[in-house]
Amino acid sequence: MTNKPISFDASKPLDFVAVGRLCIDLNANEINRPMEETVTFTQYVGGSPANICIGMSRLGLKTAFIGKVADDQMGRFITGYLEREGIDTSGVTVDRTGAVTGLAFTEIKSPTDCSILMYRDNVADLKLEAGEVREELIAGAKLLLISGTALAKSPSREAVFQALDYAKRHRAVIAFDLDYRPYTWTSDEETAAYYNLAAEKCHIIIGTREEFDMMERLGGNPTRDDHITAAKWFQHSAGIVIIKHGKDGSIAYTDDGASHRARSFPAKVVKTFGAGDSYAAGFLYGLMQGWDIPASMEFGSAAACIVISSHSCSDAMPKAPQVHDYIERCLKGEIAGTSS
Amino acid sequence: MTNKPISFDASKPLDFVAVGRLCIDLNANEINRPMEETVTFTQYVGGSPANICIGMSRLGLKTAFIGKVADDQMGRFITGYLEREGIDTSGVTVDRTGAVTGLAFTEIKSPTDCSILMYRDNVADLKLEAGEVREELIAGAKLLLISGTALAKSPSREAVFQALDYAKRHRAVIAFDLDYRPYTWTSDEETAAYYNLAAEKCHIIIGTREEFDMMERLGGNPTRDDHITAAKWFQHSAGIVIIKHGKDGSIAYTDDGASHRARSFPAKVVKTFGAGDSYAAGFLYGLMQGWDIPASMEFGSAAACIVISSHSCSDAMPKAPQVHDYIERCLKGEIAGTSS
Amino acid sequence: MTNKPISFDASKPLDFVAVGRLCIDLNANEINRPMEETVTFTQYVGGSPANICIGMSRLGLKTAFIGKVADDQMGRFITGYLEREGIDTSGVTVDRTGAVTGLAFTEIKSPTDCSILMYRDNVADLKLEAGEVREELIAGAKLLLISGTALAKSPSREAVFQALDYAKRHRAVIAFDLDYRPYTWTSDEETAAYYNLAAEKCHIIIGTREEFDMMERLGGNPTRDDHITAAKWFQHSAGIVIIKHGKDGSIAYTDDGASHRARSFPAKVVKTFGAGDSYAAGFLYGLMQGWDIPASMEFGSAAACIVISSHSCSDAMPKAPQVHDYIERCLKGEIAGTSS
Amino acid sequence: MTNKPISFDASKPLDFVAVGRLCIDLNANEINRPMEETVTFTQYVGGSPANICIGMSRLGLKTAFIGKVADDQMGRFITGYLEREGIDTSGVTVDRTGAVTGLAFTEIKSPTDCSILMYRDNVADLKLEAGEVREELIAGAKLLLISGTALAKSPSREAVFQALDYAKRHRAVIAFDLDYRPYTWTSDEETAAYYNLAAEKCHIIIGTREEFDMMERLGGNPTRDDHITAAKWFQHSAGIVIIKHGKDGSIAYTDDGASHRARSFPAKVVKTFGAGDSYAAGFLYGLMQGWDIPASMEFGSAAACIVISSHSCSDAMPKAPQVHDYIERCLKGEIAGTSS
Repeated sequence: MTNKPISFDASKPLDFVAVGRLCIDLNANEINRPMEETVTFTQYVGGSPANICIGMSRLGLKTAFIGKVADDQMGRFITGYLEREGIDTSGVTVDRTGAVTGLAFTEIKSPTDCSILMYRDNVADLKLEAGEVREELIAGAKLLLISGTALAKSPSREAVFQALDYAKRHRAVIAFDLDYRPYTWTSDEETAAYYNLAAEKCHIIIGTREEFDMMERLGGNPTRDDHITAAKWFQHSAGIVIIKHGKDGSIAYTDDGASHRARSFPAKVVKTFGAGDSYAAGFLYGLMQGWDIPASMEFGSAAACIVISSHSCSDAMPKAPQVHDYIERCLKGEIAGTSS
Repeated sequence: MTNKPISFDASKPLDFVAVGRLCIDLNANEINRPMEETVTFTQYVGGSPANICIGMSRLGLKTAFIGKVADDQMGRFITGYLEREGIDTSGVTVDRTGAVTGLAFTEIKSPTDCSILMYRDNVADLKLEAGEVREELIAGAKLLLISGTALAKSPSREAVFQALDYAKRHRAVIAFDLDYRPYTWTSDEETAAYYNLAAEKCHIIIGTREEFDMMERLGGNPTRDDHITAAKWFQHSAGIVIIKHGKDGSIAYTDDGASHRARSFPAKVVKTFGAGDSYAAGFLYGLMQGWDIPASMEFGSAAACIVISSHSCSDAMPKAPQVHDYIERCLKGEIAGTSS
Repeated sequence: MTNKPISFDASKPLDFVAVGRLCIDLNANEINRPMEETVTFTQYVGGSPANICIGMSRLGLKTAFIGKVADDQMGRFITGYLEREGIDTSGVTVDRTGAVTGLAFTEIKSPTDCSILMYRDNVADLKLEAGEVREELIAGAKLLLISGTALAKSPSREAVFQALDYAKRHRAVIAFDLDYRPYTWTSDEETAAYYNLAAEKCHIIIGTREEFDMMERLGGNPTRDDHITAAKWFQHSAGIVIIKHGKDGSIAYTDDGASHRARSFPAKVVKTFGAGDSYAAGFLYGLMQGWDIPASMEFGSAAACIVISSHSCSDAMPKAPQVHDYIERCLKGEIAGTSS
Repeated sequence: MTNKPISFDASKPLDFVAVGRLCIDLNANEINRPMEETVTFTQYVGGSPANICIGMSRLGLKTAFIGKVADDQMGRFITGYLEREGIDTSGVTVDRTGAVTGLAFTEIKSPTDCSILMYRDNVADLKLEAGEVREELIAGAKLLLISGTALAKSPSREAVFQALDYAKRHRAVIAFDLDYRPYTWTSDEETAAYYNLAAEKCHIIIGTREEFDMMERLGGNPTRDDHITAAKWFQHSAGIVIIKHGKDGSIAYTDDGASHRARSFPAKVVKTFGAGDSYAAGFLYGLMQGWDIPASMEFGSAAACIVISSHSCSDAMPKAPQVHDYIERCLKGEIAGTSS
């Protein structure tokens, strides 16, 4: 599939470990209206790597999480939820400095007009320290996922680099979900610097065209050419680079020079949140099953359709039979709706 | 009533202006359980001076607010609510620095075991600047209310001192609701310093025994004697000092040497939040009607009973006939419950 | 002299205690050139209240200092110097947080073109805490001097208010040398707020017209009228307000409605630094001798002439006979030079 | 010499460019005593990369500097000095945020007991931004030197990574002088993280055993073995790793498996400051002349002897004939003294 074959070490006990953000989504119960008119909210576990980890666990993999939660009711809600999902939380530490849990209030004005009101000041997830990253969890895992938000501030930033160092040392495959969110970052230059340093060490890189543009802001790709982007990372560690072009779909580039596009499916869209996370979970699950890239992408697309048709992100992550069933029903034409 | 008679200038167009905290309460819908098991929340306007101002407006007074809200959906929710309550919001400015709205998640484990999870990092209400305090609002008001939380940080702290300066210049009566909350403050010494500087300028001071202890931490009243506390403030501007002793009730000291205790009423307590704010609104309303101190205290107590029997603080603030009716029904023995 | 007579309690053992800034002056040895061409510097103790305290001690008074120094060679240099000058340093604490000593590199391009390059980040003097202000030093002193720079930041700001509280409690006379320096302060509004709160409690206030303008920036004296300025403070605690008008000389206003101008003396000016500090020391010394205001001002002016004729500030503070001698020689016409 | 031959591109117009710290040394004029007894100081340009760049220029190379200075007399002193030394300062920008020039007061109690009092709060050199690093200067240079101190804080840290990126793109040789100084850094974990990320990209790495220990604190070399240290970097970009063992001398490891020790010379030591900088300048100069590693090390050692025999660091950097002469005189036994 790729010259630099991405192979998962079957002898390792854990399939998947994610490092990074754990937070709370507060989803407006009254949808299709501005948040000013919202009066009640429902609480879910959130954060891109948390969602992906929950997704992987639902798909039947053995998973663990490395992160930090606040020493309060919100923090305990998060840890409790992960444990009930079967995720190993021995790598989730508790902040003792008075940090709070990150919040994301979601506003759904219409299926295509969604926004988020973030609370990211003094959040516990960015307090994870390098010394708190448990080497044995990474040593025992086939696949490590990192997420860009965790690079936004010290000491979480150094914890991510420490996790990368352990993964390299123990030959875990590393996936990088760029997940760039402008708040929390101080400057574009800072953002680009650490995204690039991290990406150099990763085998699978997944992001939007705009996220890759941000990483290339100080030169090298003025025409925003996907092939130049992918080629840069193939010179380092990467074997697969997935670049998402919004409505125009995603393309997976591989270091053998090939590129792949996957079929997309119709969906009854409630909101767009969570699409990327469920896609990543589905795609990585496919790769770990030994499927080829198009099949893995297709599985990711179907998983995304299921999530965006529901009210939550984490809580809507599908099990494998649900995804297979969704694909089948789409192929039979049983599901109509906007194409995702 | 007092030697330093607290008289309201009848020629002024506005009855009441409050300065300080505007925030959001997110009250757990599932009560009598820990917040870890809560999944939905209902949103209300909150913050002690906001609650008192809403209370005064419900009681029929002409009111205004001086404060600052975030430039987001939460901020617009607050301003919209105040306006619908008939409060003049021309003194409410909008932050442009990316500050957020303060949040208070309430947890009601039982009527007597309530706690609050606060989000107070980078909040808009503490960004109010001295230059944004509208002198004409204070010049036109009979009574200014300040609240201790607004003293916790610059520039809000200086805005409060500016409001006090305008009130002195235009001979408004000044009430100080101590409302001390340890988060946000850097040190006890800092807290005591600014509480004392502000209290020197106020005519009516309302607080718990513990709040006055905090103000006296660097000497002067080792036996925690109410009379010493009150006497200190009578040497400055105060004519009335109300010291709350929890279950043992409140005592109002006046600078003629008298002290007053008010009757308390039974209540079916849902939660204890909001008791102090509704008490303050009721008491100040009574004073402004020309009632004597015991009658004003009684009215405040009854208003507090109504609020603690309901799910919210701001939204439960009663109208005057409701309070009179409550007192009457208590006198007739129609209301049983825990005494407030 | 004033209606609110400023009388020093003769029974108190200490004449004078100053609270505030202790720092290092590094004076260019090569003068009359830009600092870019300077290669060697000589080190002196500096800081306005330190200079005044050294001046008072040289004049023969019993003095003490309340402040904080860095835990390094510079800090020990300062404490050692004060002790050798006979100043009680039991109120000088040592920072343990890694703060540094404030530095002032002076540049003397010409006698009338002097500037200062300040190092004021993370300085020890602004780390003095309210709890470190020794009540017994203030209780035992006839006169307390505070200086505006110490109000610039917490916790030093609260330490000054604590010192004022002790001075009020123990009936010490309080002098306020405004000494406003824009660096360190966050905003003009913050500056004005705390200067005003402090000045309300002081008996003697000394500053430039521009410093008083800064304090009146939020209204009350649009025509910058000295009489309005002085009258405001006479409503609070002040009996003497000295307003300096640069080349046009200083005027002392007293709360009996009088105003006084003092004779000025010629001087061979080397640099202008230190003029205000030596003036303050001389003037306050005169008052404490029971001299009338014009005599005290004259003594201050002569002391200032001596300091500006030399290379340093602190180290050049004169003894009383030197000042008397200077006045005498001026009267005899033995000293020519620019008028100070 | 090494498998990964370190070859300098002769077609490039510039020999050497350094990026990083520019500051001021204030050297006590009264030596062999504690700084508390010092009263005068002499000012020199300082900062490890500045010293090395001055050294390279004195040795006859074409040099440039990339850094940032304060907008004050100290900043202009630095830029002026560099220019007079023939260093291209087109890459030296001027801070506009009110940052100050870093200061290092040196205390020489005895030739072997020297210490430094640093002023590093809010310093201009750490404000250099990635966007201010001039690509053309690095593109045109044979050798780029980075220094660890510049990694201590954003945005300077990202500027260094940007410089490394340009150097890689334009195939400049990269030397890393570890120059670890604990102040300024927030935590050991942060320090190790960025030192390692930078070192991965460098061809020549020079540091003390303790500096390499700090980089290996999270595992990999518990016995502090030089060969393990060197081998790690040979897996990345390095061809030469020099590890300094204090009195036991320095060892240069090369990626062909060899190691080299150089002769040391006697010196009349005044102070130890500046030894490492002059050594680095001499060694890199030797390499650029095409000398073998032992000869280059010897030249570095002799340059260091000259600097530690004098009062300053930067100002004492020798010209090439001086170094050759020093070596010759040592060989003839004309120079006695402590061995350096």
